[in-house]
Amino acid sequence: MRPDDERTDSPNSPSPTGNSHAVTYRLQHTDTGCRARLGTLTTPHGEVALPTFMPVGTVGTVKGVTIDQVVATGAGIILGNTYHLALRPGADVVAQLGGLHTFSGWQGPILTDSGGFQVFSLAERVKITEQGARFQSHIDGARIDLTPEESIAIQEKLGSDIAMQLDHVIALPAEREAIADAMLRSARWAERCQQAARRQDQSIFAIVQGGLDADLRRESAERLVELDFAGYAIGGLSVGEEPAEMYRTIDDTIPHLPTDRPRYLMGVGRPEDLIEAVYRGVDMFDCVMPTRNGRNALAFTDAGPVRLRNECHKTDPAPLDADCPCPACRHSRGYLRHLFTSGEMLGPILLSIHNLTYYQRLMTAARQAIAADRYPEFRQQKLAGWQRG
Amino acid sequence: MRPDDERTDSPNSPSPTGNSHAVTYRLQHTDTGCRARLGTLTTPHGEVALPTFMPVGTVGTVKGVTIDQVVATGAGIILGNTYHLALRPGADVVAQLGGLHTFSGWQGPILTDSGGFQVFSLAERVKITEQGARFQSHIDGARIDLTPEESIAIQEKLGSDIAMQLDHVIALPAEREAIADAMLRSARWAERCQQAARRQDQSIFAIVQGGLDADLRRESAERLVELDFAGYAIGGLSVGEEPAEMYRTIDDTIPHLPTDRPRYLMGVGRPEDLIEAVYRGVDMFDCVMPTRNGRNALAFTDAGPVRLRNECHKTDPAPLDADCPCPACRHSRGYLRHLFTSGEMLGPILLSIHNLTYYQRLMTAARQAIAADRYPEFRQQKLAGWQRG
Repeated sequence: MRPDDERTDSPNSPSPTGNSHAVTYRLQHTDTGCRARLGTLTTPHGEVALPTFMPVGTVGTVKGVTIDQVVATGAGIILGNTYHLALRPGADVVAQLGGLHTFSGWQGPILTDSGGFQVFSLAERVKITEQGARFQSHIDGARIDLTPEESIAIQEKLGSDIAMQLDHVIALPAEREAIADAMLRSARWAERCQQAARRQDQSIFAIVQGGLDADLRRESAERLVELDFAGYAIGGLSVGEEPAEMYRTIDDTIPHLPTDRPRYLMGVGRPEDLIEAVYRGVDMFDCVMPTRNGRNALAFTDAGPVRLRNECHKTDPAPLDADCPCPACRHSRGYLRHLFTSGEMLGPILLSIHNLTYYQRLMTAARQAIAADRYPEFRQQKLAGWQRG
Repeated sequence: MRPDDERTDSPNSPSPTGNSHAVTYRLQHTDTGCRARLGTLTTPHGEVALPTFMPVGTVGTVKGVTIDQVVATGAGIILGNTYHLALRPGADVVAQLGGLHTFSGWQGPILTDSGGFQVFSLAERVKITEQGARFQSHIDGARIDLTPEESIAIQEKLGSDIAMQLDHVIALPAEREAIADAMLRSARWAERCQQAARRQDQSIFAIVQGGLDADLRRESAERLVELDFAGYAIGGLSVGEEPAEMYRTIDDTIPHLPTDRPRYLMGVGRPEDLIEAVYRGVDMFDCVMPTRNGRNALAFTDAGPVRLRNECHKTDPAPLDADCPCPACRHSRGYLRHLFTSGEMLGPILLSIHNLTYYQRLMTAARQAIAADRYPEFRQQKLAGWQRG
């Protein structure tokens, strides 16, 4: 079966009732050997083949990469950070400059997060109440209130295709009661986000919380599914837990999510995490790893990560990956090493592009494997390659 | 007359004897109203329309710009710095990685300077003797001897199309005797470079010195022309003198250079300097200004420089230049300002590309004006625009 075949007879096909969301998901095929699924996300700014990886465009720029170069990596949708954009340049400035699409120059779909994770990870003097989060900007110390309603108002000014609900993220490990409290608050905030939404050309994804507790994850999913969101994210992971715990929590959550909505694992992750999560039924990812690691001279390859500052690359004429079409792979490893040891900007630029291209090629290969019902073998093959490296 | 017309009947056409240099110049047309001239430089890596501006690729990279992006600016030839490349990664490493073309990925012509100017401007504890320059690396303090022969040996390892002679650059103002000494030493070094050269696929350009003294410039030019170089540079300018003094010195030098060889004004300069020098008969330029200023948020436009950090651009939806095809000009000034105020790499990247594109478009327009015998009017129009800004 080819990726763009439509299967209306599948037991996993969209509910015949459909939904009226601006952003919709069409399931095309589920691998016969696992939960990996092929689908299409339709948004006001075009369609995206799922599973997909979203490059992170923190303040309206994927760091060090022009929009043409982002397109050339194969990306179909990018992510913008509400927290960062609200601080600089401010949502009103973005709105005056035409919204995030015009501002950044990215004409495809955009997902904005809600700021919840950045409040948890970056802000200072954070106080969470039922009303929302009160905190100080990590840039200038300004006092800021971020409520579910305000998060949606900002995201509507940004004009993303997909807005994320504001959620209450807590550090793990934590007491079960604290995890349950945050999960229940997140569910109440999801409903407030839904009620605050005004734009017809934007859909909200809800975020399942509940730490590593299967029962709390199930309860969170059930509460949110009841509210009928356009998509569901799995949040609160990749915060320091073991990969195996993350994979188990995905397994505990996915069965409680509807098959006709996309599933987005937030802030994940390493190539192996993407492969494991797709295996378990996840459709969408975002992570700063390809760009952040690229800036630090680490390149992803099928043989595992390559650290380009190492002396062994000094006179190596081979490219990182002879099959990769990215501009970094038209140079030798020796040249790339030289850029980093000389402190040249082009090093971070080229490796950011290479790593983003690597992630996109990985997702393209995953979609092809699912379409051919050979995702489990594909997974084994990829994991073996990375472990060899 | 169109730029690519060939004029064999012109009094300025190449000498019928021609020359056996790997790099040759064909004069196509001299503007009827001034000394501005249109020509073609032929090198082992292709042809370049002159006048032209060479982006500076210090250590084998135009800072922050990929090779595809350099090509897209319209550049026809780039410059590499012998001093910088000799220190990092070392000429032998570049040679092992296939030479500077393969190393950098730039397949067009490359000119390498000799290191003379960097010894003057960057190195520490410099001691110049008749033998050469002895100095300490500005990076690790290593003791280095750079002789004319060594400079050519390094440039042969780099494999550039055009190697520059090692010259003795001195700070201005200086005593006439010191200027004369350095000029005569540079002429002797030119001959030593010529005698040291082994590669058939590389030509050497000599460098006219002599400070701001017309007689010394004439004497320098005559000595070098006698030796029959493939091209002649005007060196030792743009070291702090007034623009008018630089222009006068160009006027004092050009008549003593042969019409059938290209003339290269080293390290220059601002857009107005290029326009004034082309008016006086100069064919080639290099300068870090477009990239260095771009990294510092200064953009060149026909209305003069634009400082993008200024508050006035905060919500400006207009591009820098609606007619410019570069990727920066697909964004608003407000977005570009935001990139700089947020410390995002994309700001320096986009403005470097814009400024390089600006310089190339300026040279393209200059060539068209010369071809149409309207260079003097073109010059006036450009200068008026920049002064208005």
